[in-house]
This record gives sequence, C-alpha cells and structure tokens, in this order.
Amino acid sequence: MPYLSDRVELIQMSPIRMIAALLDKARTRKSIISFGGGAPSLPPPKELVDEMLRLLKEMPAKALGYCGTRGLPELRELIAEDFKEYAGVEYDPESELIITDGSTEGILLAFLSILNKNDEVILVDPTYLGYSEPIKLAGGRIVRIPARVENGYQPDPESLKNAITKRTKVFVLLSPDNPTGRIISREFVKALVDLAQDHDFWIIYDGAYQHIVYEGENVWPQSFSDAKNYIISVHTFSKEASIPGLRLGYVAAPKEVISAMEKLKQYTSLAPDTFGQYALLKFYENDVKKRYLREVVIPTYKARRDLMADLLRKYLPEAKTVVPKGSFYFFVDMRPYLEKMGRSDKEFANRLLYRKEVVVIPGSYFGSMGEGHVRMTFVSEPKERIKEGIERIWEFVLSYAL
Amino acid sequence: MPYLSDRVELIQMSPIRMIAALLDKARTRKSIISFGGGAPSLPPPKELVDEMLRLLKEMPAKALGYCGTRGLPELRELIAEDFKEYAGVEYDPESELIITDGSTEGILLAFLSILNKNDEVILVDPTYLGYSEPIKLAGGRIVRIPARVENGYQPDPESLKNAITKRTKVFVLLSPDNPTGRIISREFVKALVDLAQDHDFWIIYDGAYQHIVYEGENVWPQSFSDAKNYIISVHTFSKEASIPGLRLGYVAAPKEVISAMEKLKQYTSLAPDTFGQYALLKFYENDVKKRYLREVVIPTYKARRDLMADLLRKYLPEAKTVVPKGSFYFFVDMRPYLEKMGRSDKEFANRLLYRKEVVVIPGSYFGSMGEGHVRMTFVSEPKERIKEGIERIWEFVLSYAL
Repeated sequence: MPYLSDRVELIQMSPIRMIAALLDKARTRKSIISFGGGAPSLPPPKELVDEMLRLLKEMPAKALGYCGTRGLPELRELIAEDFKEYAGVEYDPESELIITDGSTEGILLAFLSILNKNDEVILVDPTYLGYSEPIKLAGGRIVRIPARVENGYQPDPESLKNAITKRTKVFVLLSPDNPTGRIISREFVKALVDLAQDHDFWIIYDGAYQHIVYEGENVWPQSFSDAKNYIISVHTFSKEASIPGLRLGYVAAPKEVISAMEKLKQYTSLAPDTFGQYALLKFYENDVKKRYLREVVIPTYKARRDLMADLLRKYLPEAKTVVPKGSFYFFVDMRPYLEKMGRSDKEFANRLLYRKEVVVIPGSYFGSMGEGHVRMTFVSEPKERIKEGIERIWEFVLSYAL
Repeated sequence: MPYLSDRVELIQMSPIRMIAALLDKARTRKSIISFGGGAPSLPPPKELVDEMLRLLKEMPAKALGYCGTRGLPELRELIAEDFKEYAGVEYDPESELIITDGSTEGILLAFLSILNKNDEVILVDPTYLGYSEPIKLAGGRIVRIPARVENGYQPDPESLKNAITKRTKVFVLLSPDNPTGRIISREFVKALVDLAQDHDFWIIYDGAYQHIVYEGENVWPQSFSDAKNYIISVHTFSKEASIPGLRLGYVAAPKEVISAMEKLKQYTSLAPDTFGQYALLKFYENDVKKRYLREVVIPTYKARRDLMADLLRKYLPEAKTVVPKGSFYFFVDMRPYLEKMGRSDKEFANRLLYRKEVVVIPGSYFGSMGEGHVRMTFVSEPKERIKEGIERIWEFVLSYAL
C-alpha cells in the first residue's frame, strides 16, 4: 500500500463522532441513555413531511435531481426574508447567500475561504470541537480565550483584546453556545464588532442554535451597525427544523466570500440536497417555522431543561453549572465529585458508560477550560429517561463514596 | 472587508457548474435543449420512491436523523455484497467502505488522504474536470497523458510509463469515461496495475458510470490479482439510481485510507444523508437494481445514444467521434467545421446557446487534447428533443457556410 498524506496525522478524530458511531451500532440497545450527541429527538414539522410526500408523488425526478451549487434560488429568497425579520439585516439572495451541507460544510468553506498559513483564529475555551480541525486543514493557528462558569460562561472583552495580534484573521462566535448554553451578551458583541473593524479581522458567527432560546433573546452580530461586512454567518436546519439527517444549512456573507465558497463547494459536495431544499420552502410559509418553534421545539426542550436543572440540583448539589438560556446543553463543573473519586472527566465518562450505560461527553474535549466538566444534552431523551439517567449518575457517584 | 485566502485564487470555477447555475435559473424555459450536464432525466426506481414514502410515514424522525460518519452499516453490507458480485472482490463493510456525499466528496477525501505538497497525479487528457481543483487544494501537481479519437480514446500504456516519476503518487482512472464514453481496455488496466505495484503509487478508480454500459463489460481494476491494496474505488448513486439530488456515493479502499477519509469527512459534511441511505437499502433488494438498470436505464439511454449517433452521422458527417460503449456522452471532434467557421470550441458553444438555445460543453474544458471538440450528453433530453437539438446545431453550422 502506498503511503498516506501528512495531513491525516494532523487531523484529530472528533471524539463526539466516535461516540456517535458507537451509538449507531447500539441503536437497538434501548438500555443506553444518551446525554451525548446533540441530535434532536423530535420529528420535523408535519407540514415539511407532508410536502416531502407530495414531492415524491408528484415530481420525484425533479425533487431528487441536481440543483445549482448555491442551492435553490427560491429557498435563498425565503432565507433572506428571514434574516430581515429576525436580525433586521438585508442579504441579497442572489449574491450573499449559499446553501451548504449542514453548518459543517459552511464552517469548512468559511475557513478555506479566508485562512492563509499561520493566520490566527481566536476561539473561546471551551467551545464546539468542530472548529479546530478545519482551521488546521486550512493552515490556521488557534488562539484561545477563556470562559468560566463563575461569569456565566461569558468571555471577557479584555481577554479578547489581549489575544489580538497582527496575524488575527477571525474570531469565532457561537451563540447560543455549545457546550455551555450561554447566550452571548450584547456588550461582548459590541466590543467584538468594534475590534473586528479596528483590526480588520473576520467574525464567523455560528448560529446553529439561533432559535433555540428559552429566556432572553438571540444577539445577531450582523445587526450592529457597519458590522455586516465583517461577518460570515453560518447556520443549519438540523436543530430548528429537526432534520439533521438531510444535512442542510446556509451561509450569509459578503458576496466575495460567497463566490469563494461556491468555487470551493463545487469540489466538496457539488451541490446541496435538492429534496430537502424543496421541502424547506414550506418551512417558511404560513408561519410553519414560528409555530413549530413556539408550540413544539421550545416547550418540549424547555420542559426537559427545567427537569434536568431540578435533577442536577437534587442529585448532584455540589456540581456547578449555569442553567442554559439557549441551545441543548448543561455544561456541568463536576470537580467537587471528580476530586473525591480520583477521576478525570474522561475516565468518569468512560466508566459511567461501561457501568451504568449513560453517555455524557467529557468537558476536556471542548478545551482545557473544560477539564473536570461534562456536557449533558437534554434534547435526545424524553423526560422519564432523563430522570432515569441522572439517577444512574447519582448511583454511580455514590458507589465511589462508599 | 478583511481579505480572503490565496487558495481562492488558486481554484477555478467549474465551467460545467456555471452552466448548471444558468440552467437552474432558466428551468422554466422549455425552449433550451440541453446536451450539457450529465444529469439523468429518469425518475428513480419506483421501489425506492415507495420506500421513501414509507419511511416518511412510519419513521420520519429516524429517517431524517443523524447517522454515523461512515454511513449506515446495513447499507455498507449491501455494497460489499455488490462488489463481490460485480468485481469479484471482497471488501469488509466495517473497515473498507465509507458512504460519501456523492463521488464529489469521495474524490476530495481521496486526494486529501494521500497527497502531500508537490506529489504528482497523472490524469488522462481529456478527462472529467472535477479532478484538477481538488488536486490543487490538496497541494498536488497534475501530469497529463493524451487520449485520442483515433485510438478510440484509449490512453497508451507507453505514455503512462513515460509520465511516471519518483513523485508519482496516483493515477486517476475513469471508466466508462467522461467525456469520451470509452470503456478502458483490459490491457491498459493490466499495465497500470503492474506499474502501480512497481512504483508504489495509488490508483483512484472512478466508477461513476460502472453500470452504464451498452456494449462489452466494465473493467474493475480491483479484480486484477494483488491490485486491491493500491486502489481507492470511488462511486456514486447519482447515475445508476437516478438520485443525483440526494448526493450519495461511496468509496472502497484499504482500511487505512477509509479511516483517514472518515477523520476528514467529519469536517467536510459530518455524515451522509440518512434518508437516502435508508431508501437505498431497497435498491439492492429483490433485484431492484438489476431490473432498473436492465429494463429502464440501459434501454432508455441506449436508444437515445443510437439516435444521437445516427443524427451526428447524418447532420455532422465530417465530425469524428467514437460511439460510446458506456456513460452518457459523445465527445465529438468538430474541427472540420470549426476551422471553416473560424471559431474555437468555446466560441461555438457560447454562440450556439445564444443563437439556437442548445447547450453543448466545449471540449477544451476537459484538457488541451479536447480543443476543437464538444461534449454532448444524450441522457438529459427525450428523443424528440435530441432530434430537434441536433437539427438546430446543423442549422447553426449551415448558417456559417452561407
């Protein structure tokens, strides 16, 4: 066998996907309770499924045929209207929007479009682990600023300022956040936008959880004056329409960036999934999206969040966390327990899965600030299994105290 | 606006996708006859569509939910059986197969997995234009060997031998071919496999058209003895199941390559489309695939191919071409006409679209050996429109003779 490329060694396997592959195998084993992946367990809106049925009956060849690399023009028009409504910002559907293969492809194309070798990318620590490897693939270097439970996981504008160098090319803002569930403060975004303009760097805004908000409001960085030209706004339909398996998302950015992304996308995936795009046209019609979020997604997840908050207080009272105002996760500082147990967060997660069949994600996967923490999603399991899972964690912790 | 990356300048916009975007816009303009893109116009097998309907009715959340990065294990098992039947080769579904976002992602991941900076890739000229840009993205250098109409577009083992250097890392074999429609000879593949073993380079086999064969048989390079360890075999469901819009394909390769591709895929698309994968389980059941190919795909396309061959002989008797034994295309040497017209192939294609609303692809897009040629697909239009299109080309050529 001839040898492989050096970049294969450079790139790390995503630990979350390793767990996903494991869960994929064990799909039939009902006994495993997963607080692991952030996969919605809700069915998509009925209107979307009905439209899919209609497309397959009435126009299968067209609905399953190719579309252009930027995606269906009619879907981009609806997305532009949506941006206007929610963020108060105008994007030209023709030149400033592209449909992507989930936000995963959007993130990769964004980094490939802007990073040269040794350009610096500032990330919050802890953060989603889908950023570091595409940054490396694009030749970038990672700089981190901390976010701590004591400050409600809000990063500090001063530490951002101190992290900026002549090589700073982009700051990545994920809000509502994964793994911490915090919604970024307006103060931080204001400072960020000013710094981006002063130092001429990009902001990649990852709005994966833009509508998954339980209290307060999402902060759209592009809504700040003069900010739009500095922002690459990456989004996904996976969470808000509960269709992660169709792999659809979109990016809004200055037209030069969208042109660059289109060129690159021809060689990553050629074009987005046509079928899902046609169905999504109905997501924006007749308030389907708003109603689905208001009547199904938010109440379902909020009730599960509230339950998990109560259970964490009751069963793990020494753990520190912030009740998430948005997204899917509790990021729980387990150090009071882990120290007594003499275990790292990774050892804890491994043994918990082995002994109690409960999946949690070790916090150190999300950065060094996450050591001693675990991430627990409340969206993958119904309430009774959330209760069962936390009780199993409690039993597991107790078994060490004996 | 901060600046973009240098690689954006390095990468070319695919000319075929530019035309696709144009056609996307003009979808409603029935007057345009397209011999351009290679998009099947057939609906997918009824059994596939029926299964999609069932999945949406009975298990929408699961069918539209995430799966693991390598794709559904049960689909990989069926693909392994298929390889055994057609190519006579065993692949382990667990370790030697991965589902991709069409062959586009398979090709990108293959190059990213094996190419270091300045590694050489040998391509046939002319060839599919989806190889050059991912090679550049992965840092590789392109070396070309010619294929000529006089030899039925078969490349010559001697010119391959002469093109090999110490830096040769991979040869790309596409058969049945795009743009020429030739099926590679067993002699060439035998020589290729021996050279790959002697000089320790990879063969990327692109089997996009593996089952689109009208006469003769497909030649599977992995069926040659001891060849399997040198071959990365890239495939798509777009052509044989007529579902290009779902973006699904697969790669078979040694397990080290599949592991590398899986790592990279986590950051290109995370996971393949779940819905289409579940539906494809039915493609392999009860001879659906065989029957669809035998009763629908091959007879439909063969009739159109035969018609186009007759029409080309009748209306463009001076053009040289090879009646394709496989794939979707005639690659027509138009130089006898173009010289009289004083036009390049690109000018010809542009004016033909503008004046007669017929799309053909300029041959020079596929490499310098394609200059003076045009590529014409016979799969995108029904017979009466193929006739109408060729008559329009004839009128167009005649108008210059006046």
